[in-house]
Amino acid sequence: MFTHTKKLQYHAKPSKPDPLMAKKLQEILGGQYGEMSVMNQYLFQGWNTRGNEKFKDMLLDTGTEEIGHIEMIATMIAQLLDDAPVDAQENAYKSDPAVAAIMGGMNPQHAIVNGLGAAPKDSVGVPWNGNYIISSGNLLADLRANINAESQGRLQVSRLYHMTDDPGVRDMLGFLLARDTMHQLQWIEAAKEIEDREGIVVPYDVPADWEVKEVNNILYNFSEGEESKSMVEGKKAADGREFRYESTPVAFADKPILKPAPPSLHNSTPMDKM
Amino acid sequence: MFTHTKKLQYHAKPSKPDPLMAKKLQEILGGQYGEMSVMNQYLFQGWNTRGNEKFKDMLLDTGTEEIGHIEMIATMIAQLLDDAPVDAQENAYKSDPAVAAIMGGMNPQHAIVNGLGAAPKDSVGVPWNGNYIISSGNLLADLRANINAESQGRLQVSRLYHMTDDPGVRDMLGFLLARDTMHQLQWIEAAKEIEDREGIVVPYDVPADWEVKEVNNILYNFSEGEESKSMVEGKKAADGREFRYESTPVAFADKPILKPAPPSLHNSTPMDKM
Amino acid sequence: MFTHTKKLQYHAKPSKPDPLMAKKLQEILGGQYGEMSVMNQYLFQGWNTRGNEKFKDMLLDTGTEEIGHIEMIATMIAQLLDDAPVDAQENAYKSDPAVAAIMGGMNPQHAIVNGLGAAPKDSVGVPWNGNYIISSGNLLADLRANINAESQGRLQVSRLYHMTDDPGVRDMLGFLLARDTMHQLQWIEAAKEIEDREGIVVPYDVPADWEVKEVNNILYNFSEGEESKSMVEGKKAADGREFRYESTPVAFADKPILKPAPPSLHNSTPMDKM
Amino acid sequence: MFTHTKKLQYHAKPSKPDPLMAKKLQEILGGQYGEMSVMNQYLFQGWNTRGNEKFKDMLLDTGTEEIGHIEMIATMIAQLLDDAPVDAQENAYKSDPAVAAIMGGMNPQHAIVNGLGAAPKDSVGVPWNGNYIISSGNLLADLRANINAESQGRLQVSRLYHMTDDPGVRDMLGFLLARDTMHQLQWIEAAKEIEDREGIVVPYDVPADWEVKEVNNILYNFSEGEESKSMVEGKKAADGREFRYESTPVAFADKPILKPAPPSLHNSTPMDKM
Amino acid sequence: MFTHTKKLQYHAKPSKPDPLMAKKLQEILGGQYGEMSVMNQYLFQGWNTRGNEKFKDMLLDTGTEEIGHIEMIATMIAQLLDDAPVDAQENAYKSDPAVAAIMGGMNPQHAIVNGLGAAPKDSVGVPWNGNYIISSGNLLADLRANINAESQGRLQVSRLYHMTDDPGVRDMLGFLLARDTMHQLQWIEAAKEIEDREGIVVPYDVPADWEVKEVNNILYNFSEGEESKSMVEGKKAADGREFRYESTPVAFADKPILKPAPPSLHNSTPMDKM
Amino acid sequence: MFTHTKKLQYHAKPSKPDPLMAKKLQEILGGQYGEMSVMNQYLFQGWNTRGNEKFKDMLLDTGTEEIGHIEMIATMIAQLLDDAPVDAQENAYKSDPAVAAIMGGMNPQHAIVNGLGAAPKDSVGVPWNGNYIISSGNLLADLRANINAESQGRLQVSRLYHMTDDPGVRDMLGFLLARDTMHQLQWIEAAKEIEDREGIVVPYDVPADWEVKEVNNILYNFSEGEESKSMVEGKKAADGREFRYESTPVAFADKPILKPAPPSLHNSTPMDKM
Repeated sequence: MFTHTKKLQYHAKPSKPDPLMAKKLQEILGGQYGEMSVMNQYLFQGWNTRGNEKFKDMLLDTGTEEIGHIEMIATMIAQLLDDAPVDAQENAYKSDPAVAAIMGGMNPQHAIVNGLGAAPKDSVGVPWNGNYIISSGNLLADLRANINAESQGRLQVSRLYHMTDDPGVRDMLGFLLARDTMHQLQWIEAAKEIEDREGIVVPYDVPADWEVKEVNNILYNFSEGEESKSMVEGKKAADGREFRYESTPVAFADKPILKPAPPSLHNSTPMDKM
Repeated sequence: MFTHTKKLQYHAKPSKPDPLMAKKLQEILGGQYGEMSVMNQYLFQGWNTRGNEKFKDMLLDTGTEEIGHIEMIATMIAQLLDDAPVDAQENAYKSDPAVAAIMGGMNPQHAIVNGLGAAPKDSVGVPWNGNYIISSGNLLADLRANINAESQGRLQVSRLYHMTDDPGVRDMLGFLLARDTMHQLQWIEAAKEIEDREGIVVPYDVPADWEVKEVNNILYNFSEGEESKSMVEGKKAADGREFRYESTPVAFADKPILKPAPPSLHNSTPMDKM
Repeated sequence: MFTHTKKLQYHAKPSKPDPLMAKKLQEILGGQYGEMSVMNQYLFQGWNTRGNEKFKDMLLDTGTEEIGHIEMIATMIAQLLDDAPVDAQENAYKSDPAVAAIMGGMNPQHAIVNGLGAAPKDSVGVPWNGNYIISSGNLLADLRANINAESQGRLQVSRLYHMTDDPGVRDMLGFLLARDTMHQLQWIEAAKEIEDREGIVVPYDVPADWEVKEVNNILYNFSEGEESKSMVEGKKAADGREFRYESTPVAFADKPILKPAPPSLHNSTPMDKM
Repeated sequence: MFTHTKKLQYHAKPSKPDPLMAKKLQEILGGQYGEMSVMNQYLFQGWNTRGNEKFKDMLLDTGTEEIGHIEMIATMIAQLLDDAPVDAQENAYKSDPAVAAIMGGMNPQHAIVNGLGAAPKDSVGVPWNGNYIISSGNLLADLRANINAESQGRLQVSRLYHMTDDPGVRDMLGFLLARDTMHQLQWIEAAKEIEDREGIVVPYDVPADWEVKEVNNILYNFSEGEESKSMVEGKKAADGREFRYESTPVAFADKPILKPAPPSLHNSTPMDKM
Repeated sequence: MFTHTKKLQYHAKPSKPDPLMAKKLQEILGGQYGEMSVMNQYLFQGWNTRGNEKFKDMLLDTGTEEIGHIEMIATMIAQLLDDAPVDAQENAYKSDPAVAAIMGGMNPQHAIVNGLGAAPKDSVGVPWNGNYIISSGNLLADLRANINAESQGRLQVSRLYHMTDDPGVRDMLGFLLARDTMHQLQWIEAAKEIEDREGIVVPYDVPADWEVKEVNNILYNFSEGEESKSMVEGKKAADGREFRYESTPVAFADKPILKPAPPSLHNSTPMDKM
Repeated sequence: MFTHTKKLQYHAKPSKPDPLMAKKLQEILGGQYGEMSVMNQYLFQGWNTRGNEKFKDMLLDTGTEEIGHIEMIATMIAQLLDDAPVDAQENAYKSDPAVAAIMGGMNPQHAIVNGLGAAPKDSVGVPWNGNYIISSGNLLADLRANINAESQGRLQVSRLYHMTDDPGVRDMLGFLLARDTMHQLQWIEAAKEIEDREGIVVPYDVPADWEVKEVNNILYNFSEGEESKSMVEGKKAADGREFRYESTPVAFADKPILKPAPPSLHNSTPMDKM
């Protein structure tokens, strides 16, 4: 069960409107690696955790925080859209390149659909969807998803920082940078705890005789040029075994021949003799 | 530029048809973490790499290998669909529960749309899409995406292994398990090389004064109950600093008040005095 | 900013596992009118409200409640998936129709992808997306969206109630039925307050001379048969004007003729003389 | 069965080309609340209506009208795209801000993909999809969906009206405004007829003992601050009962504990003692 | 402008309910190549046609017919869903395999969401979307899209015919088979008329010196094995020139080297000397 | 199994950066008819081919070539994005219309998400998805899909050619034009071989008595105006039979009446007497 205070976790007030920046900030709200993704990813992982309460708590701690981040960014976007030039008389782009750029560049849905509000979409208007997230039931796998999400997220925030010189926007982005630093570090720490117990390969409990073991430490050189050789040659993998490099990968199996489909499928008539 | 041999990288031949297993295997072909995702993710990352040829080569090596994995699984699915019971006379589910289960459970598109062939979709029929992958231009971020993808992928393969006792299917899954082991290890190794040079937090080159530094090492306890405290208390983060824990997070900013939209947006009339 | 208690708003405990019901409950979690939709719809509407704090507060009250409903349903689904028959030896559907029905009918991603957890998807596995919701900046329009959402939602819950006889599942559904009753009533009340002030047609402030007034009270009979006539004939509309009925709608405008595209588009050569 | 006359229901001829307005008009053609949505929503509702022929007729009347609205808007868009500046020599944006704004702002697919024609997509290019509509089998629920759709639709048309001063475009928008007025009024009238018979809460026929009755008239204050209290305090709901307000919502259920998954799922090892 | 008669173009009445067949028929209603696709494809092509009125008329003739086909299939689906076993007491799948198969196999949304009605989705529940269709402004290109659509459509109908022995369903499918025959033939005829005038390659008016002419008649053997050689060797293409076959394709261009991104993108540090 | 050489099949080097052209080129990479579509379409068709090895080989030959085309276009896009103006100081659009146009017009994800790299999306940012392709198991149907795809593809490339005067970009587009010429010709040739054997209508093996034969050669005049009559009148169809034209199509079936749904669906109460 959740409760809400209307106070924001951090300041989200621009010094002036900027509809183009509003459009770009949608990426970290409703994009593949925006706050909606981390919020839902952590909450679903938390709700689905079985028998590991301290991990569950940490996931729910940070998932709950992320709802507040969505709130901050949505609030920022709404204010960046103030005074967006949507009237026809402002269509005077023939003489004013500044207005022209905004007319051409702002997201038309911010005015037509959302009345100067944010939406759960990315910077090109593609709606957020549930296949952006993963909750697998395996904590190490999921913590790796989280480390990745926070790395992509902080990278995007750092790029957005360059795209504005508004001190209010930068202040909020600076807060997000800091929280993404912490979130990277905490998921790395949590993952390490599991790796120390279960080893580096996910999932750790696959019976050894299931794997085709002779190929589980080879880097195959499928792209001509052996620049990648130095990445593994003479090195030990994180599980302690030596890597191998195969310059000319060989196919294990013959060309497959499929038998014709039955007539009720109305596939093409097979012309080959079989 | 690519070339193809019709030989398969590994055996992909079931001992008998099984349309339900065909449906399930679609997950590791065209699902969020299926082979289409890793293939496209590694190739796009490789093509977009700038100034790091040995990483580029490794990404293209493995991305190219993954095209061959799609081929193996597609071939397996086509053969598992042999003799699927699609005719009306086989609709005799009133008396034969085995046929009934297959009739109800197989993916109808495998017959109606694909004529007993595989499709670029997941196990519930949702088509693969380009937002499953990431190619960010930052190698460490992307290698973390890759470590995650191979962890989720190997986890799914291990679960599918339990769902069949067909030795042919299991043999192919055993090969994929082994390759996913290697792929996890190689991306971990590659990530470590960058971490050793650039540090643990992505991206490493954000100016220190951009971050709101006082919050970049705190775990906020937004979910009541302090089980998560032990995850960080007294521990050093991977970047060497100490973690902090804040039991009762405090909001930095006041409740935001948005000013009314201009009349041309036809938003609701504001009733509050401002 | 949000906080979380791990206590659930209401009980969410089935008396026994049921993977088929788990699949069906996904509809009210991540479907078009599931809890993810109402949660996001109310929160975005609340964050985007300008100058109407009591409406904003009500939207955020109920939007926050809905996060807790997602939590309840996700928790229920996780427990309904306990003991799902995913192993090959349980594939013995040839002799046991009960297991057969579950094998064929359960959502394979619940096992393969989510490890017996819920996901932000609907009952056929289509992921939730941001275009399910609306936040328009016009409160009356949005309250009507909310009335609709709660009507569809309560309808779906009532149908699901028939599909189970598990007292635990029914208890939770009974709670959702009650909350959806209240939510319908509260949005109806809130809409009435605005209608009383601004009138029935959204938006109320369109200049009268913009409309082609002669057609704004006619029901056109475009489908042969005049059964619909009695719906409007002799009745006054909610805005006080009389409805009209036009049995044989007439076109206002001539057939349009488009001029050929310029050659640089490589459209078809126009063959008509113009 | 349908027939078509090439005459348009109303005039759809701009006085001059305007590729930016063409892009924006896509919203009311193929957006979430565009004409494709109302057309499909009303037709599917009509086709699925069981035992209420006058409602069915009205739905099919208006659904059929909406196909003609798609036609009008598509025709308008095609003409607004005349003379779109797509050639390289027109790329002279370095000196002409008017052309620059169009080059940057027009939808590139209007030229590359559609050869100056309309497409079933919204103003940012996201394709229309079948999950924008609802046909539930419950007329009151669906009429509420229709009231909402026409409210959102008329709101969007009124916003677009401000974005152009082309008299031809405004004339067509004025016609759509008028029809949306009528459509709002007719669905409100139809809904009232059902509400008068079945009551205000959908669906009306849920057995009273299914609901957890003690919570079906409470507004829970989940968002700190009691501005929303006045929305319900001392008021009667539309079903005649009094509303209640709960300042501090209490959780009914304890924190849930999920039991560990079986080993064949390869979830994380549970570390908690249970 | 369109008008509607409630009479169906052809009979659409099953002799008995069959919820599994209802699910499968969704494929030809709202699937990639269902009636919604051909309806929208032909109507948009017709509306966008410039200067070729007889083609435009033909497209609108058949596009309008297809709306009636959607209506027939939707009506059929609604009746196949009569008496679907949705109540819990019908969940008695432990003893009745027939009900078990239907419970497991029917589309749950047909009951939960649509109240026994059809929806604009395919046989696995994926919603129809606007990117299934093409309207390019080039008639020959689009007629080829139409020939393809009718070929896939008729193929799917013929497969569905095998999946039922209900004479009513088969009667309707037999009508659709016949219409798809005609539609294939009419688009082939129309395409031939344009090919006779403009030649076989689309678009016909690309200046000859734009093409890299030395490669426009070669089949490259990128997949090892020369079985494809006989497809072209010694044959003349439809444009009169001879085909060529190249057994060992050679790359024209060197390995590309991308220059590093500027620091403001926070890409990886380039380690290669350039 | 596939192998890769880093050499490009053809040159892909622009003479100068152009972020707007980068955005537009995404259409032929990840759009509905971009290279990702033809690559996947041909490979899946090849892998699913049963008993026709020379067709299978040809599909795999060209499918493999198309991976190399994706590589060329991705490489071109990465270089067109060099020096994209993403920094705030470059936001000087108030005075420089050239920069303004680029700021407004470039795809923001190219900077924020991809760090100046290509992505599997189209020119408006919609991700590629698996429902763009078809692999039906019927070769003639699929070859028609391929003829269409190459026609749409070459049309789009020819339009893009006009949008740039960069000789490097034009050189690559000229190569693609040539290859699309060949691919159109080769699929036409392959389709003819099957048509010669199986006839023109797909699928050829539907029993004659399944079709409602009296309607399989009629063009119905559903759109008022008989311009289309000359398309068929007095002409023989490709299968040798005469076309017919019906000026006033007549409905075969009466208006359908659906029986009410059972109470457990909570549909509207039927008000009609039945």
